[in-house]
Amino acid sequence: MKTNLTQAFASFSEHWSPRIAADLNGQQLKLVKFQGAFDWHFHEHEDELFLVHRGSFTMEFRDKRVELHAGEFLVVPRGIEHRPVAEHEVEVLLFEPASTLNTGNITSARTVPAPKRVAT
Amino acid sequence: MKTNLTQAFASFSEHWSPRIAADLNGQQLKLVKFQGAFDWHFHEHEDELFLVHRGSFTMEFRDKRVELHAGEFLVVPRGIEHRPVAEHEVEVLLFEPASTLNTGNITSARTVPAPKRVAT
Repeated sequence: MKTNLTQAFASFSEHWSPRIAADLNGQQLKLVKFQGAFDWHFHEHEDELFLVHRGSFTMEFRDKRVELHAGEFLVVPRGIEHRPVAEHEVEVLLFEPASTLNTGNITSARTVPAPKRVAT
Repeated sequence: MKTNLTQAFASFSEHWSPRIAADLNGQQLKLVKFQGAFDWHFHEHEDELFLVHRGSFTMEFRDKRVELHAGEFLVVPRGIEHRPVAEHEVEVLLFEPASTLNTGNITSARTVPAPKRVAT
């Protein structure tokens, strides 16, 4: 019934492939590991919350960069272009509508149309 | 633009008084400190996610108890009676619809009809 985040993150290793950890109110909590630079994209209809569990990364916007460390979060509002960049592997929680596609308005090799559930 | 959870939790001391930390998609991320036993209640229309930031507490249900430690979360589905009980002060993140009242279907001395925003 409960989920331990450290154990859940240990259950998968792929980068840029969000895992669904919880469903509630039409939203999902997802766990994802970043390493390297993602694709520039935006979400037309969804705001996205990024909360760092372990490590750190930089959220790049067209006009600024925000460094996020463990225990820090930000919300990327709908319509705003962004891309996460992680020098080292980082574990991140996402809170967003269930409809959210990881690459938003674009399709790339990293697009995950049907995220798996995390093992709990 | 970003929020550091440790700093945000340090900005208030009241127990059982959720602070709004982010708004997105009609949902809110709230920060709350528990100590002692809360009132039994349920939320008719809202599922609630509880994620422990620091410390631990027990989520009591009518038919079971779940101990939650730092880095662990659970979702309490709508309609399910519950009450958090914390022997020592615990810091907890809540993800839930903006409409969620902390005491759900009941009104008590701990009801907070209009939560404050956390200082960031």
